[in-house]
Amino acid sequence: MLAAGQALPGDWRSQGVLHLERSPHAKLRSVPVRAVRITEGFWHKRRQVNVERSIPTLLELLEENGIVDNFRRLSGRKQVPRRGPLYTDSDLYKWMEAVAFVLQSEDRPELRAQFDQLTDEILAAQEPSGYLNTYYVEERKALRFQEQQRGHELYCLGHLLQAAIAYWRATGNRRLLDGGIRFVEYLIEIGGHGKQPLLTGHPELELALVELYRTTGDRRHLELAGYLLRGDGERLKLTPRDYVYLFSGKPFVERTKLEGHAVRAMYACSGATDYYMETGDEAYWRTLERLWRDLVSSKMYITGGVGSRAQGEAIGEPYELPNALAYTESCAAIGNMFWNARLLAATGEARFADVMERALYNGVNSGMSLDGTLYCYRNPLELTGNPEDKIRNPWYTTTCCPPNLQRVLASLPGYFYGISSEGLYVHLYDNNVLDWKLQDGMALRLTQKTSYPWEGTVEILVEPAAAHAFTLFLRIPGWARSAEVRVNGQAAAGKPQPGTYFAIRREWRSGDRVRLSFDMTPRLVASNPLVRENTRRVAVERGPLVYAMEGLDQKGLESLFDAALALPSKGFASEHRPEFLGGVTVLRHAGVAAEPPLASLPLYQPLDQAAVRRTRKVDLVLIPYYTFHNRGPTPMQVWIPYEP
Amino acid sequence: MLAAGQALPGDWRSQGVLHLERSPHAKLRSVPVRAVRITEGFWHKRRQVNVERSIPTLLELLEENGIVDNFRRLSGRKQVPRRGPLYTDSDLYKWMEAVAFVLQSEDRPELRAQFDQLTDEILAAQEPSGYLNTYYVEERKALRFQEQQRGHELYCLGHLLQAAIAYWRATGNRRLLDGGIRFVEYLIEIGGHGKQPLLTGHPELELALVELYRTTGDRRHLELAGYLLRGDGERLKLTPRDYVYLFSGKPFVERTKLEGHAVRAMYACSGATDYYMETGDEAYWRTLERLWRDLVSSKMYITGGVGSRAQGEAIGEPYELPNALAYTESCAAIGNMFWNARLLAATGEARFADVMERALYNGVNSGMSLDGTLYCYRNPLELTGNPEDKIRNPWYTTTCCPPNLQRVLASLPGYFYGISSEGLYVHLYDNNVLDWKLQDGMALRLTQKTSYPWEGTVEILVEPAAAHAFTLFLRIPGWARSAEVRVNGQAAAGKPQPGTYFAIRREWRSGDRVRLSFDMTPRLVASNPLVRENTRRVAVERGPLVYAMEGLDQKGLESLFDAALALPSKGFASEHRPEFLGGVTVLRHAGVAAEPPLASLPLYQPLDQAAVRRTRKVDLVLIPYYTFHNRGPTPMQVWIPYEP
Repeated sequence: MLAAGQALPGDWRSQGVLHLERSPHAKLRSVPVRAVRITEGFWHKRRQVNVERSIPTLLELLEENGIVDNFRRLSGRKQVPRRGPLYTDSDLYKWMEAVAFVLQSEDRPELRAQFDQLTDEILAAQEPSGYLNTYYVEERKALRFQEQQRGHELYCLGHLLQAAIAYWRATGNRRLLDGGIRFVEYLIEIGGHGKQPLLTGHPELELALVELYRTTGDRRHLELAGYLLRGDGERLKLTPRDYVYLFSGKPFVERTKLEGHAVRAMYACSGATDYYMETGDEAYWRTLERLWRDLVSSKMYITGGVGSRAQGEAIGEPYELPNALAYTESCAAIGNMFWNARLLAATGEARFADVMERALYNGVNSGMSLDGTLYCYRNPLELTGNPEDKIRNPWYTTTCCPPNLQRVLASLPGYFYGISSEGLYVHLYDNNVLDWKLQDGMALRLTQKTSYPWEGTVEILVEPAAAHAFTLFLRIPGWARSAEVRVNGQAAAGKPQPGTYFAIRREWRSGDRVRLSFDMTPRLVASNPLVRENTRRVAVERGPLVYAMEGLDQKGLESLFDAALALPSKGFASEHRPEFLGGVTVLRHAGVAAEPPLASLPLYQPLDQAAVRRTRKVDLVLIPYYTFHNRGPTPMQVWIPYEP
Repeated sequence: MLAAGQALPGDWRSQGVLHLERSPHAKLRSVPVRAVRITEGFWHKRRQVNVERSIPTLLELLEENGIVDNFRRLSGRKQVPRRGPLYTDSDLYKWMEAVAFVLQSEDRPELRAQFDQLTDEILAAQEPSGYLNTYYVEERKALRFQEQQRGHELYCLGHLLQAAIAYWRATGNRRLLDGGIRFVEYLIEIGGHGKQPLLTGHPELELALVELYRTTGDRRHLELAGYLLRGDGERLKLTPRDYVYLFSGKPFVERTKLEGHAVRAMYACSGATDYYMETGDEAYWRTLERLWRDLVSSKMYITGGVGSRAQGEAIGEPYELPNALAYTESCAAIGNMFWNARLLAATGEARFADVMERALYNGVNSGMSLDGTLYCYRNPLELTGNPEDKIRNPWYTTTCCPPNLQRVLASLPGYFYGISSEGLYVHLYDNNVLDWKLQDGMALRLTQKTSYPWEGTVEILVEPAAAHAFTLFLRIPGWARSAEVRVNGQAAAGKPQPGTYFAIRREWRSGDRVRLSFDMTPRLVASNPLVRENTRRVAVERGPLVYAMEGLDQKGLESLFDAALALPSKGFASEHRPEFLGGVTVLRHAGVAAEPPLASLPLYQPLDQAAVRRTRKVDLVLIPYYTFHNRGPTPMQVWIPYEP
């Protein structure tokens, strides 16, 4: 057991988003956020908006909506009623985690002061026992751990721990972390086998506890995660419906399919992957592999979004992937990214990096408006244009997504690279400078220069501290139809295979240059015919980006939905417009429009009278999906009909 | 005002489901249920199951679940807690209305005794003021009329009135009716302009009050309906979301589209049509016409079902008609039938009869299992076959649909005919004998002999009491590709147009015979391409029936969803199987199956690699949609892919 004040076993400066240095079943170690400086380019812009607009405005809203006051009222600093749903503590913690990740990249004294101030507010509300929650107090105190299906007590603790760990890794300050550990100690004291049964209800504490174990080295923290993953739902009399919806309470290794609440499922899988990396339990790996295949073969949107149903915010049946009704909560795409980042760390397999990148650039990235002040809860793949559809909003009563998006952007440098015993893995491409070291301690600087995702060329300058033999694993994205790798101007030996890491083992010398080129020709992608809505429709992708059509960009169309892409394709015209939508590459393609408009045709008619004439030529304009609905309500679609 | 005990102004024996004899803006009068004897045939079988299995078993369940005890506890006859959701009273009333309609057709002393006994139980729970509701009592008494958005107080009264009116029309016994009138008097006393604002919340009382007005002649009953239809939501501080969901509270004539809760919308439109028939208010008619076009052009399933979303049990956006996720509550299809029956009475226009028949034979008829003991709440157009999908159940906590289906079947004879000043309208076809009179008093007997809906020939024997000139309006269904009408063996003058009434004006003599023939060739129907899921799919119809495929009937298919109809069609083989599914005509068609199975293909792949090979020949079997899921869980679909 880690006594309060006892030194933590590692150097906080060297720890990444996940700290995998001692994880026996992780193939890759992380690289600390601070070791990667993302420079001018695609993500730099998004991260700047995040720090300068999004994070400050959200704290104001958290204050306005009483989320911080919920703590102050318990410490007696304010006399106000508690506000918001029972899980609001987690929204604040997630915001703090975002701040902590910002501080891992750069010193922002005002953010640091705010974090410390909030830590004061939070710890002043903590009970001497270690229990900490602003909802289960006073007249609801008797309900503690009595309604864990809905209570989110452990969920909130999970987010507290993640914020605390990130802050410790940012600053070495462990005040909040010690507070979190006190709550964990209390849980261990009162809960578990033969004691109060515990249930995360909304999985999250599982992954936080594994990360706490990685931070403290206290095996009980890992064991508590294992207990939660095995599930104690029988004693809590969970119903079959609970097991589905909560994705917790029964042994994780008995799961055979993804179902229930999408965010819960993604977080549970993330936690189980973390647990696997520490324990190597093969039953976990088999389950994870099965669930991942279930995801990518029938339950994931092309945007990397997950969750088809508003009702229960749920994953649906296989191939149930409606577009306009897609629920695809930002948090679920984030959970998908988290899970795949962990699977990637466990294996070094590019298939997981492909899903991670897909979710990041599309279903996650769409969640925050270009100006950083509006957020999607849902990220549908089609909009009718109804102005009543409030898709981007500054605030939600359940405001889980905004700070979740913030912490992803703030921690993003930590997802770019991985270190194995053989060398360095490059997962993501964007302008950045890596300053870190290989597993054998050799210092390495690596500089990426690229216009990715708008262009497919990435120049990498390799600068080891001294000439050194190691392998550079370069991700060849699964979406690339072809790729070329050159080292110091020479074609590298071997053919780069999309969907793998291309390994270059050599003695690297400072100044070596690698040049990657990926084919950026826009691609037409079809769905499995079992996805009912996508029959005879295509999605358009270019590089890692999924594209979409918005009504307001189309000229001469009464309705966006009258148009079809004219195939066979004579190709797309790509135009980079630096001033448009924050700088995007726009695509144009020949299309045809229905005459008369489809809405003038009957709802049902005999097949032999139902032929639609799409003959009028139109010019169709596509924008990256992540920029949708940044110019107000207008119809939008990702899956576009085509006319052969 | 109608004093208690004062004679009601009409003869109860002559009143139909709607009593339109004095309705100035009804084109057609109703024919009493008792005047039409449905004989051996399609509906006879369903109605027999209804009376012999469905109605008796549901009373047992209503008792078991405490729905009747909810009244007994108020009269002190039982000391039990109240059970069920706040609207359970209406479930009992609806069951009683079904019984009352049965009693209009035939004498069933045990049912009559049960009705009278239940009337005792109900009236014993009525307060001296007239107020009657088993939920808003005791500690909830203070909430009366204080939460009308959810309270269903007026909704329950509506169903009480409908049951009471039907029983009076069955037996001349007005005990329950007088109880209902006492509650109405109480409402008029305490509520309305300048007094307690009233809101149906769930429309229903509107149509019941118009029917009460038709029964009592008391204009205040109509005025109260008008008040409810105009809406008093401002004083109740309804939100925009309330107006959408509740489809009440704001002026009905301000509605421009169907939206919100499907059953509420259908009932509101039914009540507004009733109100129009009494008042002739053109603003109502304009609104009704607009809403009806909205329904049939973009919001109605091919089964006549309405309501696309589980969330809010709601009508969706135009063309939002998902198949597997279709909510299509039985009650909404019934509401659609009710509304169109009223529009038909108002106008005599066949377009409304077409929708009424479509809903009746398909989306309503599917709601009760063939054995009469299981009910659909949802009537989806596709099922994955997941055994966890509990589609047909004996009981629902909200058990609105079962008695609703029962009252439709019990009252069905009342929907077959209409009387205008010119003669007789024949709306529906099945074996039956009409014994009634024309508007001028001439007695008329009319006998239909047919195997409809399995065959397209209907023989009609016309027997006026004396030779008499009048018009026989014969409905030529809109679905008929062609039709033929012969009178006494001679082709009738004029070409019968599908979707109209074919008028034969002549001096009819007893023994005249009309022979109708409708083309029963199975039809392939396509959707508007804006219905996303139905692209490149067809539905199959034969006569008034929509067909479906169930997995268990298909040989040599790994998955139902691998199959496609092979087009161009070489036609369907029709086979009538009297012992199968209660006697149905089964259809067979050539199909092709995907090789390899679709589920083995990737979820997304480049369009140029995504061609699906459907080459293996299979024989596809279709059954009438209304019989789906009567043999346990198996995949089902109405909209079938085709391979051109």
